[in-house]
Amino acid sequence: MKNNLFITFEGPEGAGKTTVINKIIARLQQQNIDVLGTREPGGIEIAEKIREIILNPAHTAIDERTEALLYAAARSQHFFEKVEPALKEGKHVLCDRFIDSSLAYQGYARGIGIDEVLSINEFAIGKRMPDLTFYFDINPAVGLARIHAHNEREVNRLDNESLLFHEKVRKGYYEVIKRYPNRIKVVNAEQPVEKVIDEVWEILYELVVRK
Amino acid sequence: MKNNLFITFEGPEGAGKTTVINKIIARLQQQNIDVLGTREPGGIEIAEKIREIILNPAHTAIDERTEALLYAAARSQHFFEKVEPALKEGKHVLCDRFIDSSLAYQGYARGIGIDEVLSINEFAIGKRMPDLTFYFDINPAVGLARIHAHNEREVNRLDNESLLFHEKVRKGYYEVIKRYPNRIKVVNAEQPVEKVIDEVWEILYELVVRK
Repeated sequence: MKNNLFITFEGPEGAGKTTVINKIIARLQQQNIDVLGTREPGGIEIAEKIREIILNPAHTAIDERTEALLYAAARSQHFFEKVEPALKEGKHVLCDRFIDSSLAYQGYARGIGIDEVLSINEFAIGKRMPDLTFYFDINPAVGLARIHAHNEREVNRLDNESLLFHEKVRKGYYEVIKRYPNRIKVVNAEQPVEKVIDEVWEILYELVVRK
Repeated sequence: MKNNLFITFEGPEGAGKTTVINKIIARLQQQNIDVLGTREPGGIEIAEKIREIILNPAHTAIDERTEALLYAAARSQHFFEKVEPALKEGKHVLCDRFIDSSLAYQGYARGIGIDEVLSINEFAIGKRMPDLTFYFDINPAVGLARIHAHNEREVNRLDNESLLFHEKVRKGYYEVIKRYPNRIKVVNAEQPVEKVIDEVWEILYELVVRK
């Protein structure tokens, strides 16, 4: 049995992923678990530059296929330069967003097609899917209101999409979950954040700490 | 019958593509033929920025799959923003490098596989292959010596690859030609440039001017 896991966190904007991941990493470290927390582009120089192109609010004319290919390119570099080496060293890797984001955003919500976007992502990372994925489910209106209310971070090009787009993203995630029902655990992210943390922790404690 | 053609020019570095294309465009315009000359990234802002990432000599750690995805991303944007609109307006489009470059460089020479690189490029541009392609065949040692001797342009990251790599690129083109023997015309680019121009002109005169 494999000892260390590649775990991803998915969900619409404002679902609280970052807060939860940071708390979970702290708890794992308290248990002396060797863990790497990362997010695309994860401080990988080339991937950061790719992301700058994607998220620049001036680039409204970006073609949807170009966008999908750029996400796949940044993913490939981040995966081979950061995620895979950590997994080889025996670390658990917790990654904020990964392939399912592209399937939901570009594949479903942009209308390119989940299969097509899956194929370029398999080109990017081989068949290396996450071992476990937490999907933080939240009404997009609630998620977007959180971002705007708390001024949590600068608003980027994707935040400016219509609510309709973000509702499509949620439907896209539901389609992705149908394809990978074993890998993806759905968490109700409209609960208070402490409850979300406990729910995730309960699963990870069994898999990572007690195993 | 379709009136206007999408024509690409391929070959190793230093094969003289740019010189020949400029001369051919001038001759076509003298015949009042409506033609657009372009090259990837072709002044398309997003594609230029993508190309900056690829060709930056500081990026020696760029993953080969990331590189292939970035070329496909830049191609998609350039194609949909510049090439396709010109074709729809009834122009002939002459493009310096296109999909076959990725098949030869990333698919064959980098060892990713021609089929795999073809699949992400079909994602990028659909099934829209060029109508006609001129492959300028030249011994890579001769081509590279031309670049370095004439100081034609700044040396970029790909020029710094070993001669062995550029010999692999040539073999890659030969594989691509085997797949598309009708589309790709091989031109001996070691001839004096005036002879190369005449050879290309003879074919285009029949297809574009006299038709």
